Amino acid sequence: MTDQHPDPDKTITGRKGWPLAQRVGHIEPFHVMALLARARELEAAGRSIIHMEIGEPDFATPEPIRVAGARAIEQGATFYTPALGLPALRQAIAAFYRTRYGVDVAAERIIITPGASGALLLAVAALVNPGDEVLLADPGYPANRHFVRLMDGVPVGIAVGPDSNYQLRSEHLQQYWGGRAKAALVATPSNPTGTLIDPDELRTMAQFAAARGGALIVDEIYHGLVYEGAAQTALGLRDDVFVINSFSKYFNMTGWRLGWLVVPERYVDAIDRIAQNVFLAASTPAQYAALAAFEPATLALLDARRDEFRARRDFLLPALRGLGFGVPQNPQGAFYIYANCAGLAPDSFVFARDLLEQAGVAITPGIDFGAHAAREHLRFAYTRPVEVLREGVARIARFLGKRA
Amino acid sequence: MTDQHPDPDKTITGRKGWPLAQRVGHIEPFHVMALLARARELEAAGRSIIHMEIGEPDFATPEPIRVAGARAIEQGATFYTPALGLPALRQAIAAFYRTRYGVDVAAERIIITPGASGALLLAVAALVNPGDEVLLADPGYPANRHFVRLMDGVPVGIAVGPDSNYQLRSEHLQQYWGGRAKAALVATPSNPTGTLIDPDELRTMAQFAAARGGALIVDEIYHGLVYEGAAQTALGLRDDVFVINSFSKYFNMTGWRLGWLVVPERYVDAIDRIAQNVFLAASTPAQYAALAAFEPATLALLDARRDEFRARRDFLLPALRGLGFGVPQNPQGAFYIYANCAGLAPDSFVFARDLLEQAGVAITPGIDFGAHAAREHLRFAYTRPVEVLREGVARIARFLGKRA
Repeated sequence: MTDQHPDPDKTITGRKGWPLAQRVGHIEPFHVMALLARARELEAAGRSIIHMEIGEPDFATPEPIRVAGARAIEQGATFYTPALGLPALRQAIAAFYRTRYGVDVAAERIIITPGASGALLLAVAALVNPGDEVLLADPGYPANRHFVRLMDGVPVGIAVGPDSNYQLRSEHLQQYWGGRAKAALVATPSNPTGTLIDPDELRTMAQFAAARGGALIVDEIYHGLVYEGAAQTALGLRDDVFVINSFSKYFNMTGWRLGWLVVPERYVDAIDRIAQNVFLAASTPAQYAALAAFEPATLALLDARRDEFRARRDFLLPALRGLGFGVPQNPQGAFYIYANCAGLAPDSFVFARDLLEQAGVAITPGIDFGAHAAREHLRFAYTRPVEVLREGVARIARFLGKRA
Repeated sequence: MTDQHPDPDKTITGRKGWPLAQRVGHIEPFHVMALLARARELEAAGRSIIHMEIGEPDFATPEPIRVAGARAIEQGATFYTPALGLPALRQAIAAFYRTRYGVDVAAERIIITPGASGALLLAVAALVNPGDEVLLADPGYPANRHFVRLMDGVPVGIAVGPDSNYQLRSEHLQQYWGGRAKAALVATPSNPTGTLIDPDELRTMAQFAAARGGALIVDEIYHGLVYEGAAQTALGLRDDVFVINSFSKYFNMTGWRLGWLVVPERYVDAIDRIAQNVFLAASTPAQYAALAAFEPATLALLDARRDEFRARRDFLLPALRGLGFGVPQNPQGAFYIYANCAGLAPDSFVFARDLLEQAGVAITPGIDFGAHAAREHLRFAYTRPVEVLREGVARIARFLGKRA
């Protein structure tokens, strides 16, 4: 068990008498941002950089969605929507759960949010008191633990590896769920590992959390980008899970900042109160745009893009293994490969830095995702076309002194 | 001194074993929402309702801004921006401070946020530890105290009235700034009172807060909508204030959810960390749209709309006084009149409810803005044309059994 930032000496305090809340000292910047800034410097100086660090699809928002958004703006849809979102959009998402997953979710339980970030903020604000613990997988997406810190809760990072498909399992909850635990937060598919949680396991974890008077929060923002089998939503398993989703990844709407949160019915009033105050409502143009996301032509385009992501994975995964990176489990979704580089370099952060400087390839060091074996891991994003990835692999091969 | 919600019995707890954070019990819903829902019911049943409760300009976003937003979307500007915002937009705001206020503000200190809500979240998250106190005027905008509650701080509502122009003054800070105080939050112009704070007073308050190791947060979201004289920004007074602003009100961009926060230079890194995690970035289409907000043609249109708001105020203020409402101070900005109805009704909430049901006029009861003399006050919004306000006044006059 590793709490990522338990060292009180790391807490920034208000130097010279200026006030700064203690939680800020628990919120680390993404290290990849410094690498990205350096990559931009190198590019500005004329160097070619292969970007395998970016967690954003390279596809612009599909045209039907853009057209719907632009038309709404032209027609003057620039006023607030209700705090919980446009009723038509909440209903469209409910219909999507029905048609794509065969699951009935009442539209009233679906809250439209400014990105998945807004959804996570609402869920954690509604559940976590200061000092409460939230169990998370390490490695995991860093903002998840930082949201817990924002509410002065305590993120409990649990080391996971290949033996549990890099995911929490119910045994972890049994072992680490203590008296101050209030929730467990899992992501399926996971960032950075791309792995899924088995539905039976997910149900068992939700049952466990409920039995302890807590809640299971399931991050499904990479749903839709699953390359083997069909992901099931946790909403089909139990009514008491909190599910976070987003228009950013599968729907390619990152910059619009639109997501949603599904809550148990009894939480809708509490969530409404918080949403009214902390963001009033999600972006109106984004909500009108998203109404076009569920049209058959849009979904067909998005599924073709998903197939393109699969092709990239199917290229990159054996290529990285061929170079000596360890990827014991096939990542089944998202657009990331979490690779062990212990056989190639003593420190993944140094490796990432040197690879950028010497070979012009940007990747994300493991320390951005937690503390467990972080110096032995790297995250490769396949958010660029296969030919770009191929060049990246060739550069890495040369950097490693091998032939691709 | 009134803390708005100090009663622990009001705290909602997780009934039947389901978890709910205690802060939720301190976040009241806006009572006007129930009135608004009832107004919509009445309208759906064919009744005509005059809306004088809505805190949103009735003007759609100006065409140059809408065109810029729609064009950006069509051209594929649908990806994330940097967490702190588009550099060009931060520079445009800095230039606006220079040309409109004659104040130099480094673009690096300007953080683009999802609405003023996002700005307030960042400021409070960076400053307030659990248990820390934040001083606020009562009456005031309720979300301000709820943001303090979100961070498990303690909002200290200070009763203000006509003698201080319904605003905090430095004497209030001297009287109520205790050992746990970390900040004072003021709004100029104020919602619900429309009153301004004198710049000298503002400077004194900022000096006082700094001397006590705290900070002054100044909400300037109604800047631009000032009808007597020119409002000065607190940024011209001292470098250590936090200033919150928004594209919602003067710029008529409510639904886009775009605002900004200006912080002392030494806070930029901390704010960047929080922003990266809690919202990643503000809406990209909104940011591109807002680049057109500062064009001379747009500003000319916005100033004409400001003059229209002034004309509405100049109609509504004497009309309400003529009906017997008490408005001892002329509201100088925003689009609200905060009126004392003690001579007309024993309870403003009952008055607002009955006025809606019997006369078809929707207004906001004082209890939405605090505890101090709340049952004696109402907020009238002049976000509808003069002819609509005239009909509203006539209905109120009939309701009161008088002649307008």
